[in-house]
Amino acid sequence: MGPLDDLLSEIACRALVVVARSAGDPHLAPFAGPVKLGDSVLVAPRGAAPRLGFLVPMDRDGAAASGLRLLTPEQLDVARWARDGAGPAELLAGVVSRALQLCEVAPGAIALAGYRSAGETHDACRRLAAEGWSVVPGEGVVRRLRKRKTRRQLERVRAAAEGAMAALREVARLLAASVPRGGELHAEGAPLTVGRLKRRIARVLFEHGLEQPEGGIVAPAEEGAVPHASGTAQRVLVPGQSLVVDVYPRGELFADCTRTFCVGEQPPALAAAHAAVVEALGVAYRRALPGARGWSLQEAVCEHFAAAGYPTPISDPSTTVGYVHGLGHGLGYELHELPSFREEAEPAEGRLEEGDVFTLEPGLYDPQAGWAVRLEDLVVLGAGGVESLTPLPHDLDPRRW
Amino acid sequence: MGPLDDLLSEIACRALVVVARSAGDPHLAPFAGPVKLGDSVLVAPRGAAPRLGFLVPMDRDGAAASGLRLLTPEQLDVARWARDGAGPAELLAGVVSRALQLCEVAPGAIALAGYRSAGETHDACRRLAAEGWSVVPGEGVVRRLRKRKTRRQLERVRAAAEGAMAALREVARLLAASVPRGGELHAEGAPLTVGRLKRRIARVLFEHGLEQPEGGIVAPAEEGAVPHASGTAQRVLVPGQSLVVDVYPRGELFADCTRTFCVGEQPPALAAAHAAVVEALGVAYRRALPGARGWSLQEAVCEHFAAAGYPTPISDPSTTVGYVHGLGHGLGYELHELPSFREEAEPAEGRLEEGDVFTLEPGLYDPQAGWAVRLEDLVVLGAGGVESLTPLPHDLDPRRW
Repeated sequence: MGPLDDLLSEIACRALVVVARSAGDPHLAPFAGPVKLGDSVLVAPRGAAPRLGFLVPMDRDGAAASGLRLLTPEQLDVARWARDGAGPAELLAGVVSRALQLCEVAPGAIALAGYRSAGETHDACRRLAAEGWSVVPGEGVVRRLRKRKTRRQLERVRAAAEGAMAALREVARLLAASVPRGGELHAEGAPLTVGRLKRRIARVLFEHGLEQPEGGIVAPAEEGAVPHASGTAQRVLVPGQSLVVDVYPRGELFADCTRTFCVGEQPPALAAAHAAVVEALGVAYRRALPGARGWSLQEAVCEHFAAAGYPTPISDPSTTVGYVHGLGHGLGYELHELPSFREEAEPAEGRLEEGDVFTLEPGLYDPQAGWAVRLEDLVVLGAGGVESLTPLPHDLDPRRW
Repeated sequence: MGPLDDLLSEIACRALVVVARSAGDPHLAPFAGPVKLGDSVLVAPRGAAPRLGFLVPMDRDGAAASGLRLLTPEQLDVARWARDGAGPAELLAGVVSRALQLCEVAPGAIALAGYRSAGETHDACRRLAAEGWSVVPGEGVVRRLRKRKTRRQLERVRAAAEGAMAALREVARLLAASVPRGGELHAEGAPLTVGRLKRRIARVLFEHGLEQPEGGIVAPAEEGAVPHASGTAQRVLVPGQSLVVDVYPRGELFADCTRTFCVGEQPPALAAAHAAVVEALGVAYRRALPGARGWSLQEAVCEHFAAAGYPTPISDPSTTVGYVHGLGHGLGYELHELPSFREEAEPAEGRLEEGDVFTLEPGLYDPQAGWAVRLEDLVVLGAGGVESLTPLPHDLDPRRW
């Protein structure tokens, strides 16, 4: 409880309160673990152990599995609100207020987190304010608590990374076995489409017990040059084009890995960009040390790309050609966590520390010419530098995998 | 846009605003459709077409696929907030304020919905209030907009229901083929565990393109008697026990279906309860007509169970034996939507209308004796009554499926 107490002290709050619709809420999960639970309220008072309140008696087994001290629906007086015909906001305010009282948190400032419906939650906060609770954002506290991973969290990220690697190896296998026919790539007797690769990826991830709640990217040629475009399912792959495959599955925690392929003859601009991105990844790896700022890695990579003649977000913040995004992001219960690689990040959010898990993902894009290269490794930071959690080949040519 | 205008008039709001982390947000999805999109803000002014704002330039293709008029990151001036080092709450307030201005919504009351992080959203609402926007809950508006399903939404529910039925048929097939050995059930040469059935269900759903974001239930004997318990994976099934299998997968929309099985000789109390539940389902089916209150169906089912000698939530609100829950729930983009079957529901939320999609799920439970029966059909209401979307057998004995 030490780090949480310190974080609450920093923002002068008496407790962290997490209001969640399920135990899958990434603000609740670090406390409750992988249990089955619906509507719930966690109260973590400064200087005392957290308690987990649940709102439906039928959730009692799931709540108990968390190992936390519980606040039952009876203790939270949930039935009273239903009897009185209270709306959702009134119910939420009543339950949080009761939970705070049971945890002996006196009226004052509380830090709030958890993913809840916006309008009703705001209304509940106004009701709490009328009772003397001033509500301030608690997301920063949770984000910082989740920054350095525990051994168990790292294990779960590794498990997800294994699945992501298996999916990318399967893509490489299919591409390597494909043959050109009438200008298109065929595999296993049929045209090789983006949709086929996506289904194959989904199947491999499923076999690893992983889902893709944020989707995934299989983006050929100019589609890959818009970094968030997911790729058109019906599109048939053709030789000599780039193919960006970005996989970010979740089990209990996320993983994230990208490779770029090109079957057949590589256009010179694509091959040159690939070489520059491989070098950029090397720059990032060498600079990723405890104490470094994420932003300093982005600066170094921009310098490298600029020296190679590509526009970057530093040379032109609105560029859609060249290097067009940040270098990476922390990852865990959410796909984007701390550390931050942004210039404006405060030290506590933007400095790399031992135990941080983050991506390094330089890329180069040319929407006009219709190609893209992104190489993304997921890494964990140790005392002496980073270890890759996604040790796959970086080659464009799947036959070299 | 007629119904939305009327709903906004009812609560004297000038616009509905949905703040979402992704297009998968069940408050945004009815407007944006199945597109790929991150942080976004929908503004639906009273009397004008909705517009979709997105915060990251790379999301432009996904946003365009919604077919809605867009508000680009440039128009929303997103980069300015990053330049100024604004925190998430300040950014959100700035973007919503700008979006409202671009939609020509004058300061005044706005209805807010969307699943966002609680503390930062509340802080953003306070900032909006300082600019003259008073924020009231908009969830009721969205819930009512989603109550009666469109033809397309019903198609997507049917697709999910097909998957749920396939999964339950696979469970019945495995159970029917199982054989008792040393007091346990064996199938395909190995002990038949809860975990094996769960994996089989997950695979069938995967083949149908469905996920289980809210989990699922395979609960034998006394585990099934706690209606929300999901079932212990390692547990081996035995003859003569009840097994509750509740499947609620999601594609674009949800489906929900429950069957209860018993392999081998049925204990008389279980067989009697099953017969009473089948009759209760018949009572519910006959009463489910346009204009009826959901609560009136619950009353009729309670009356039926009481006459058969079982406790009910009406005879004893805290009972954990007998019939211990509500009769059903609407379903769509979320697992629990309108119509409501609760006593305190207002007419607009608790009255059944043509086009409503909901579950009918009577059940009987005895935790001490260690058995449970729940039968849940998903139905759509037409002018003359309900049509089942899950026309599966109701038999306990999988060999009769």
